[in-house]
Amino acid sequence: MPEFMDVHTGMAGVTPEGLMEAHNADLAIQGDEHVNFKHAWADPESGMVFCLSEAPSAEAVQRIHERAGHRADNVYEVPVQA
Amino acid sequence: MPEFMDVHTGMAGVTPEGLMEAHNADLAIQGDEHVNFKHAWADPESGMVFCLSEAPSAEAVQRIHERAGHRADNVYEVPVQA
Repeated sequence: MPEFMDVHTGMAGVTPEGLMEAHNADLAIQGDEHVNFKHAWADPESGMVFCLSEAPSAEAVQRIHERAGHRADNVYEVPVQA
Repeated sequence: MPEFMDVHTGMAGVTPEGLMEAHNADLAIQGDEHVNFKHAWADPESGMVFCLSEAPSAEAVQRIHERAGHRADNVYEVPVQA
């Protein structure tokens, strides 16, 4: 299954509880699109959030994020890893 | 040890061999700054590369990347995770 890194901006001040709540909102519906969100990293200072997932497509990742209420700014497929 | 996600742009066309070579160049000198690069994800289409590390500071991460020949566009501390 392809892997994706998606990026959210504008999340300055995000708390551990806020990120967990957003992540859980994704997890609750991700099965509808066969997406598996694996991890999320957030920088409360800059407002950047990075989410790693396995999914059939970038569009599937975005549909879950949109339905959960937090559309990503960009979704990148990351087939090359080290 | 704090964790960091750094972002490189302009790496369109990056190959698995190219990413591994760049990553190994970081690994070879990361101990000088007590940095531990854990993983790198690349999108050859957009040219985005994301590197996850543990390090004493964002500056330490950047110093290793610079010495290895590939300065990051941005280094974000990511203390909030899910």
